[in-house]
Amino acid sequence: MLRIIFLLSLLFALSNASVQDFCVANLKRGETPAGYQCIRPIHVKSKDFVFSGLGTAGNTTNIINAAVTPGFVGQYPALNGLGISTARLDLAPKGVIPMHTHPGASEVLFVLTGSITAGFISSANAVYVETLKPGQVMIFPQGLLHFQINAGKSSSSAFVSFNSANPGLQILDFALFANNLPTELVVGTTFLDAATVKKLKGVLGGTG
Amino acid sequence: MLRIIFLLSLLFALSNASVQDFCVANLKRGETPAGYQCIRPIHVKSKDFVFSGLGTAGNTTNIINAAVTPGFVGQYPALNGLGISTARLDLAPKGVIPMHTHPGASEVLFVLTGSITAGFISSANAVYVETLKPGQVMIFPQGLLHFQINAGKSSSSAFVSFNSANPGLQILDFALFANNLPTELVVGTTFLDAATVKKLKGVLGGTG
Amino acid sequence: MLRIIFLLSLLFALSNASVQDFCVANLKRGETPAGYQCIRPIHVKSKDFVFSGLGTAGNTTNIINAAVTPGFVGQYPALNGLGISTARLDLAPKGVIPMHTHPGASEVLFVLTGSITAGFISSANAVYVETLKPGQVMIFPQGLLHFQINAGKSSSSAFVSFNSANPGLQILDFALFANNLPTELVVGTTFLDAATVKKLKGVLGGTG
Amino acid sequence: MLRIIFLLSLLFALSNASVQDFCVANLKRGETPAGYQCIRPIHVKSKDFVFSGLGTAGNTTNIINAAVTPGFVGQYPALNGLGISTARLDLAPKGVIPMHTHPGASEVLFVLTGSITAGFISSANAVYVETLKPGQVMIFPQGLLHFQINAGKSSSSAFVSFNSANPGLQILDFALFANNLPTELVVGTTFLDAATVKKLKGVLGGTG
Amino acid sequence: MLRIIFLLSLLFALSNASVQDFCVANLKRGETPAGYQCIRPIHVKSKDFVFSGLGTAGNTTNIINAAVTPGFVGQYPALNGLGISTARLDLAPKGVIPMHTHPGASEVLFVLTGSITAGFISSANAVYVETLKPGQVMIFPQGLLHFQINAGKSSSSAFVSFNSANPGLQILDFALFANNLPTELVVGTTFLDAATVKKLKGVLGGTG
Amino acid sequence: MLRIIFLLSLLFALSNASVQDFCVANLKRGETPAGYQCIRPIHVKSKDFVFSGLGTAGNTTNIINAAVTPGFVGQYPALNGLGISTARLDLAPKGVIPMHTHPGASEVLFVLTGSITAGFISSANAVYVETLKPGQVMIFPQGLLHFQINAGKSSSSAFVSFNSANPGLQILDFALFANNLPTELVVGTTFLDAATVKKLKGVLGGTG
Repeated sequence: MLRIIFLLSLLFALSNASVQDFCVANLKRGETPAGYQCIRPIHVKSKDFVFSGLGTAGNTTNIINAAVTPGFVGQYPALNGLGISTARLDLAPKGVIPMHTHPGASEVLFVLTGSITAGFISSANAVYVETLKPGQVMIFPQGLLHFQINAGKSSSSAFVSFNSANPGLQILDFALFANNLPTELVVGTTFLDAATVKKLKGVLGGTG
Repeated sequence: MLRIIFLLSLLFALSNASVQDFCVANLKRGETPAGYQCIRPIHVKSKDFVFSGLGTAGNTTNIINAAVTPGFVGQYPALNGLGISTARLDLAPKGVIPMHTHPGASEVLFVLTGSITAGFISSANAVYVETLKPGQVMIFPQGLLHFQINAGKSSSSAFVSFNSANPGLQILDFALFANNLPTELVVGTTFLDAATVKKLKGVLGGTG
Repeated sequence: MLRIIFLLSLLFALSNASVQDFCVANLKRGETPAGYQCIRPIHVKSKDFVFSGLGTAGNTTNIINAAVTPGFVGQYPALNGLGISTARLDLAPKGVIPMHTHPGASEVLFVLTGSITAGFISSANAVYVETLKPGQVMIFPQGLLHFQINAGKSSSSAFVSFNSANPGLQILDFALFANNLPTELVVGTTFLDAATVKKLKGVLGGTG
Repeated sequence: MLRIIFLLSLLFALSNASVQDFCVANLKRGETPAGYQCIRPIHVKSKDFVFSGLGTAGNTTNIINAAVTPGFVGQYPALNGLGISTARLDLAPKGVIPMHTHPGASEVLFVLTGSITAGFISSANAVYVETLKPGQVMIFPQGLLHFQINAGKSSSSAFVSFNSANPGLQILDFALFANNLPTELVVGTTFLDAATVKKLKGVLGGTG
Repeated sequence: MLRIIFLLSLLFALSNASVQDFCVANLKRGETPAGYQCIRPIHVKSKDFVFSGLGTAGNTTNIINAAVTPGFVGQYPALNGLGISTARLDLAPKGVIPMHTHPGASEVLFVLTGSITAGFISSANAVYVETLKPGQVMIFPQGLLHFQINAGKSSSSAFVSFNSANPGLQILDFALFANNLPTELVVGTTFLDAATVKKLKGVLGGTG
Repeated sequence: MLRIIFLLSLLFALSNASVQDFCVANLKRGETPAGYQCIRPIHVKSKDFVFSGLGTAGNTTNIINAAVTPGFVGQYPALNGLGISTARLDLAPKGVIPMHTHPGASEVLFVLTGSITAGFISSANAVYVETLKPGQVMIFPQGLLHFQINAGKSSSSAFVSFNSANPGLQILDFALFANNLPTELVVGTTFLDAATVKKLKGVLGGTG
């Protein structure tokens, strides 16, 4: 009996900090610059911390013969506020993840299968390209243009992670050719000729 | 037809990241330590990223012959969460931006017109004062007392920016003399004499 | 009269920045990764910045003969977003703050009364232990296991602070023995034997 | 005499904090992830905080009829560690600052003279373009592709600032065409055809 | 000829920013709180961004039938200052990565082969345990106790990453039993009995 | 024998992370924006983490009848990079810590003895003043003007901490009157009259 009293007072002494180690996102509530509002801890379950969306290959039957499957906060709400996220790359033969940037994060890539040629270009216009085998890791510093290409004859895949729950993904060709940015502005800001721009807008669904 | 299928599956493969690169403030919703809740991206327009409030000189018909026109998150909601903000200084002849601090940000000042004597004082009580011409830039490190004075006979102006969307602005004389901080406390904490304090409270509208 | 016009235009020139230097938590509104929503400044009072919860000794009539009284954001809402928090330790004779970590903050401890043996263990498994007298300060780097023990025959106490408004508190024995973590998993991940685990689960109220 | 003793003991009591509010870069010493080593405060002079490099227009007699003049930590060492930097844009008639990113910073642009059409593209491929007059400000969120074009018939200029002492500058055409990135990789990662790539490599001095 | 002049002046206009997007560590120079000094960019090669240390299984012939192979800044200097790192886990049958924390980082784990039971305990002593299959991801919030156990009869492996270049690794049993922390202090701060502590010190090489 | 082999391979598997949880400052080496270079861990001792400088009252025989004793990184090198620091305030009868700011940190104050009237002024010029008893805590948000006054007839003292290893300390009267800032500039930027400025310069040792 005395022990119970002792324990109750111990719990009282130590348990009222009520701190929160994580903040699983309530995607239906308003977003803030630091992320989404938290689900109350009492409603959080073990399975919320697990993401199964990267377990199968993305659909590579498309113009790039490749797929990026994100596990960002929008797909994986437990990442909210924890400053880290994930994705999976799948590259069929001839597959390419086209030139792109992540505006707010550095990336590490871990090759799972096949062989991948990956590279990035620095602010000083230096080119860093390597061909990677399974188990090799490559780092892409924050915000720089980079790409991945299947370097082999069979499919390849990779697991990547970012030091942001919401790293962003800006694909160069989509930014230039898959929206209503006027051809004249694309031409004026890229040195590309109008015919090339119009052709790629045609391929990628852009207008203007 | 096949191309369309290819493109649709590409869009499916790449477009579901749904990340948000910006967070235009909804000033009517609750503020958090990291800023305001975001307006939904679908409601954000190009013009939201433009601020026109610094295009004309502030009204300098006042006791300091000067004006600070802020372009902080409260006036320019697109800055929310982006860690940067702006302001414009206008100094009529004899104009002074009195001694002040920005509690949460460093500042760069770019002189537009006229000539400005600007300075700051370090924690070690060292004084750094320079007189600037149009086109010159000066940096004021975070949180330190600093000031700007019109150094010429005509009006001068400057564009400033801060590395915070909400840098704060604490004007020394207002903090000491334009509120209800009791004269006794001002005297006790500044070495100023009561007559001086009362006189300045009278000028600046303070009580107590 | 002219002076009043001057002052009004001065207030107009300088007062519309409407910045917020603090963000007293509204604990009833949704939490975000950066903390709670702010109470509107007009509703904030001087006394909100004062916390009186550390003024009296915690109840040490418990199994550890000690108490941790937190002054985190949950108890002291004015800390919200300010990146700092507080707590008080009380140790009766033989009192022990058991081995624990603060997942998100470094800690400084200031001995108030008595004598305290405190220590932490680094990632390299090095042990840093010192016995402290009143007025001495010790720093515990972020996230490392540490402890405090009453080193004298009378009560001792300390004031501690953290560089986070919500530092967290993970007490080792509670994490291992005061919940439903299966005995088999505790045994498997700690090298402890099942009998020891079951005994401590019994003492601390754990199941499984 | 007594007053002198009082003052000396006051100086002793208050002056030994020896904190440093700034860290003017010693560009000759090794760089770290947080910036350069500091010049000792005793060697820092008022004029170190002033940068005069933006006072005159950059040379626009070049292929883009424009110039970017940086005032980053490399040119303006007083910015080191202060999280802010500056630059000046000059655009002759038909001048263009080509599509580019700043990998590590958001940017505000303040139009000084003339008229500038500026825009950026979001991760969701939305286009935000506006034509700005003198005094107008535009914000470009971190890491996104953006550009500036002279929108008038005379020269235009702008002052910009960034929330980083070292924001980086990656110009798209230089990254793709002004280095040794093999034509095959450019083609493979951008959908551009080889003839276009080779032509632009020729114009911009690239090889491979 | 004119084109060459144009290009030279373009290079002059745009190339003198001399920014650094990365800071490959010089491990032989002094460390700072933000990481190591940088190798000069001219000495950095493509292969520096690749880490091959995770490509083969760690040696699991040991008391835990498991291995953690780190790819932190000490092994992979290109991570310096980029806020991200990697590691590989290998678990032979009955393999266990014992209860541990990373003091300065959150972790994501991606199962490569086999089946892994992983879990963490929150500050509120709640237990979150899941058994994962290849391709599944689990997040472990910063600083909390967690573990991984081989859940199958064959070997399993995982790739993990952290949002810090130097996340730290504190293994509970090593911290308690593999150093010179006196048995008396271990007993006093963990509720374990002296016999258990001495036995584990014997197994793990601790003294005192 | 086999056990030893097992243990050696375990140490090999787990011990080569070589991470550093702390970075005790080498004050003789160059400072960086993130702090000082680290002493090598092998030279760090337990006692380095303890600071004894706050254990005795500062000398209050001075013009303010008070003393601030800092325990910042300059005095307490183990704080380097850990984002927290300490100080002690001593106030004799009539003692005052004059109006001041900490440019880079928020502060919590814990009253040890006596009674202290403390207050701060917000950017909106609101005044928050409270009189505190032993054990009460008050928070001062980052960068705002604040002060402490002995509210009783006997001595009082307080322990304070900051969320920065190097919070800075700018004492208003010293910044205005204890250096070579020309009287004309002080008058021009504060509304004080020249006689008052000259008198205080005389008291505090200023020139100009």
